[in-house]
Amino acid sequence: MLILSMMKASKPTILVVNDDGITAPGIKALMETMAQIGRVVVVAPDSPQSGMGHAITIGKPLRLDQVDIYDDSIEMYRCSGTPVDCVKLAVTKVFKGHKPDLCVSGINHGLNNSINILYSGTMSAAVEGAIESIPSIGFSLDDYSMQADFSHCLKFVKEIAEQVLANGLPTATLLNVNFPPGNNIKGIKICRQANAKWAEEFDERNDPYKRPYYWLTGVFQNNDHGEDTDVWALEHNYASVVPVQFDMTAHHAIPVLNSWKFNL
Amino acid sequence: MLILSMMKASKPTILVVNDDGITAPGIKALMETMAQIGRVVVVAPDSPQSGMGHAITIGKPLRLDQVDIYDDSIEMYRCSGTPVDCVKLAVTKVFKGHKPDLCVSGINHGLNNSINILYSGTMSAAVEGAIESIPSIGFSLDDYSMQADFSHCLKFVKEIAEQVLANGLPTATLLNVNFPPGNNIKGIKICRQANAKWAEEFDERNDPYKRPYYWLTGVFQNNDHGEDTDVWALEHNYASVVPVQFDMTAHHAIPVLNSWKFNL
Repeated sequence: MLILSMMKASKPTILVVNDDGITAPGIKALMETMAQIGRVVVVAPDSPQSGMGHAITIGKPLRLDQVDIYDDSIEMYRCSGTPVDCVKLAVTKVFKGHKPDLCVSGINHGLNNSINILYSGTMSAAVEGAIESIPSIGFSLDDYSMQADFSHCLKFVKEIAEQVLANGLPTATLLNVNFPPGNNIKGIKICRQANAKWAEEFDERNDPYKRPYYWLTGVFQNNDHGEDTDVWALEHNYASVVPVQFDMTAHHAIPVLNSWKFNL
Repeated sequence: MLILSMMKASKPTILVVNDDGITAPGIKALMETMAQIGRVVVVAPDSPQSGMGHAITIGKPLRLDQVDIYDDSIEMYRCSGTPVDCVKLAVTKVFKGHKPDLCVSGINHGLNNSINILYSGTMSAAVEGAIESIPSIGFSLDDYSMQADFSHCLKFVKEIAEQVLANGLPTATLLNVNFPPGNNIKGIKICRQANAKWAEEFDERNDPYKRPYYWLTGVFQNNDHGEDTDVWALEHNYASVVPVQFDMTAHHAIPVLNSWKFNL
């Protein structure tokens, strides 16, 4: 009740971004859900940008064009750059310094749990939002298909966004939210990032000129059997919510390094 | 003395990577320095990859070709992908599972202190090395020029690499090492990542067809006046060494989120 009355009192402005590109079903589901709680502005890549991590475009120019894909009232821009470029251009050229109240990224087609946060354009866009001091959330669904059904996630997406608008987030943090597939999500678990990695298996082929080339493939390996991780929550049909920070300092390692004697 | 005797007992294998590309002066300085302490294998991008962050190449194939640029005995490969792709291909296709003893990235032409770690291909390559459980270090110099002089950094580079080979690093951590310009480096400071950010200022122009395009520019803004940060150390002519982790969980925020009441 409190949240609903706040929403009515001042409609929040919500930046929506993703990495699967502006025509992906996941961003359509997200923008429509956000339109129920605020004024939505979409700034998204004009082409798929999966795996772009926190890349920015240096040394070549960017395009930013207003578009009207769905013939509705939502303000939309397509950007020629990366997901992080989209956030930077949105803040500087679309919002012109009047920062939005919330930045949401996704809904990604495919999980961004555990170590995947580093490779993910979806999550890097949310991290960039947080660097800009905008409360930010990345959403991802465990379904890579372009026909993925997001309908069962949307009440969670809306509720988590409303909670962040109402409560804010601790300074210099954001949320990484992942959903299991299927209709029977048991609830939300607050988690830590599982200590997992990808075991690479490059698929080596030869081109018509007999020169080798390589396709990146791999197997996700979870070495972390904690029941407080995002991997555990998703395997047990919970939506995982990991609070994320962009201070990457390993503070516990500082005393170790201070004990070293450098011979200089 | 202990370190030198260890080096002689078994020569370590050292993977050298960067983001400025295989022909950059910074990687030449780094590989030559590493050749003094181990067997060096270089796997580096065939073109500049600054600002690529932790991007990986999905949906298009990669090339990996052995090259002999400097006509010496160092084994070198150029890769068509990102810095992180280079590490993945090195581990899988060059070392074929026999991991190197050390992964060093750089020496970058330009600082990667503070928040720049997220945007940096140099640091992301080192992070990927650490994810692969290889002791890893990223090196950067505060000089963007392709004519940058790295000579004053090299005794620090060698000493830090030898210390990491001798002592190892705490589990799931790596080092982010940055050097000030000029000849009078006062010593090494172990630091935390400063809480700073870029204030973007896109340079807007019109193309010959009157359509706008944008160049990313910006000003580095340090809001962190701590004397234990990498920004402080560099401003006071110290080499900064930040221990880095790839667990991005904001552990302190977990109790805050657990206190929220979700209405589902």
